[in-house]
Amino acid sequence: MRGVQCADVYPDPEWETLREAIADYEGVKATQILCGNGASELLLALAEALQPRHALLVAPCFLEYERVLAAVGAQIEWQVLSEKNGYLPGAVFLDVLKQTDADMVILSNPNNPIGSLLSPEYVEQIVALTRTRGIMLVMDECFLDFLEAPEQYSVKQYLDSDSHLIVLKAFTKTFACAGLRIGYLLCADQEILCKCKRHLPEWNVSLPASYAGIAATKERAWLRETAERIRTEREWLRERLTELGYRVFPGAANFLFFTGKEGLYEHCLSHNILIRDCSNYRGLDAGAYRVCVRRREENERLLQAIRSGNA
Amino acid sequence: MRGVQCADVYPDPEWETLREAIADYEGVKATQILCGNGASELLLALAEALQPRHALLVAPCFLEYERVLAAVGAQIEWQVLSEKNGYLPGAVFLDVLKQTDADMVILSNPNNPIGSLLSPEYVEQIVALTRTRGIMLVMDECFLDFLEAPEQYSVKQYLDSDSHLIVLKAFTKTFACAGLRIGYLLCADQEILCKCKRHLPEWNVSLPASYAGIAATKERAWLRETAERIRTEREWLRERLTELGYRVFPGAANFLFFTGKEGLYEHCLSHNILIRDCSNYRGLDAGAYRVCVRRREENERLLQAIRSGNA
Repeated sequence: MRGVQCADVYPDPEWETLREAIADYEGVKATQILCGNGASELLLALAEALQPRHALLVAPCFLEYERVLAAVGAQIEWQVLSEKNGYLPGAVFLDVLKQTDADMVILSNPNNPIGSLLSPEYVEQIVALTRTRGIMLVMDECFLDFLEAPEQYSVKQYLDSDSHLIVLKAFTKTFACAGLRIGYLLCADQEILCKCKRHLPEWNVSLPASYAGIAATKERAWLRETAERIRTEREWLRERLTELGYRVFPGAANFLFFTGKEGLYEHCLSHNILIRDCSNYRGLDAGAYRVCVRRREENERLLQAIRSGNA
Repeated sequence: MRGVQCADVYPDPEWETLREAIADYEGVKATQILCGNGASELLLALAEALQPRHALLVAPCFLEYERVLAAVGAQIEWQVLSEKNGYLPGAVFLDVLKQTDADMVILSNPNNPIGSLLSPEYVEQIVALTRTRGIMLVMDECFLDFLEAPEQYSVKQYLDSDSHLIVLKAFTKTFACAGLRIGYLLCADQEILCKCKRHLPEWNVSLPASYAGIAATKERAWLRETAERIRTEREWLRERLTELGYRVFPGAANFLFFTGKEGLYEHCLSHNILIRDCSNYRGLDAGAYRVCVRRREENERLLQAIRSGNA
């Protein structure tokens, strides 16, 4: 592997080749990109750089949002999503946006851990409202490329006209390289990019990650096929879990979120299967789970384990 | 390579196996270690976490110290090292320490870019003075393991008794893996470690880096041999450069610093050899250079290039 064979040299601190590759892949300008040691590094850097006073989050959401905001002492306003609305923020959240004192909103589309998807029209409203109200909008789209037409949902389309937008992405999920750590941030505002870069360490993207990232951008066809296979498999798994009596929520990512009786985490673990017990997420209770959509035989093993507990 | 083959899983965010390996290698407790995506990430995290108001640096020093301190808005007090003292801080610096209002001092031993070494006695005085004056002492020992008896020079020996001490280290130089990004921080104060960890992204050490780090800790004999070869080669190169009319400073690391006539950087570049023009370091002027000590044939190529310019 190229990145390992020449590991004795430093990575490019300006990520030039990597940025060119990502620019081509995303259809944005190379000057609108910062690269990171995973999206989590960029999330932390933007919190350190922009020092939000007051941030608006939905619950549940990715646990890292709260962690980085707490690290910089931001006050967090929570908008708890309701199960009966399928954990979608809906009109209530738009009303909150009209009144909040928040200077930053962090959302992910699809939501993690739910997998629920914000429609293109809804995303457009969020972009417009945050623009009008002078709120920085950070949209985490790390799971978006599992969709058939991600570009319709991405806030990327507003990037050139909206300097209050930051998009977070990673190759972690789509290209199965969580261990290599490679993410990126898109923003059109050079001042924001410059501030964020000051809060990134030099040489932050390792050579293996850099080479993997460049290679990934050339694999559009592979991604399209994989995403399609995951969508098919996800629907199959969703039907089976529903048959087993769980309430399974529509998911747009490579995972499914469902609720049901307590103790499933422990039960699966006793069958050597690790599922995510989501009861520690703000806004969720015991009996909430997230499972990864995997290969058919793995998904069947999961179902078998669950069935043996139901019996 | 193991870290690449299983790159689809996340790295351990607590670095348990890696920390155990480093603890054994360094002779410290695993609970006294934070791991990072290179020492540069840990340097930034500690600045973000401890938010020094006023930091004392010597000039010249590693450029990253100034960069991370500026990122968190710290005021920097410069102590310019003098060429005639071989760029050693000496008694003058001890006097500065007695009076400064600084809440943090960052030093590297050996110095980068000079390569000059602080003696064990001098290091002990610095530790005692910063302890008495309540100043956080950050000692960058990334190049220390090129010495024959590094443990005599390391502030590590004061770690258990001194909670104001932070040691920065990396496998970057000693194990030639700059591209993989693997560094660590040693400190006995759990509160400081906890604060610093909040300013590190999750999963910050990639799997390839983690496996390389673990493997490196088992290679003590290799390191001893390599360090000895570098010391021999360094003396050989130093003599040759001196013969060519340069003022070469005693260096304890895997590089040599020397001064002489201007234009050597451009001249070497025209021979496809990249040396470090150090004129952009605070405290240094044009005609200051740093060269890496490499294999004999590479060092000979460098000398040949330099000679062709002298002719």
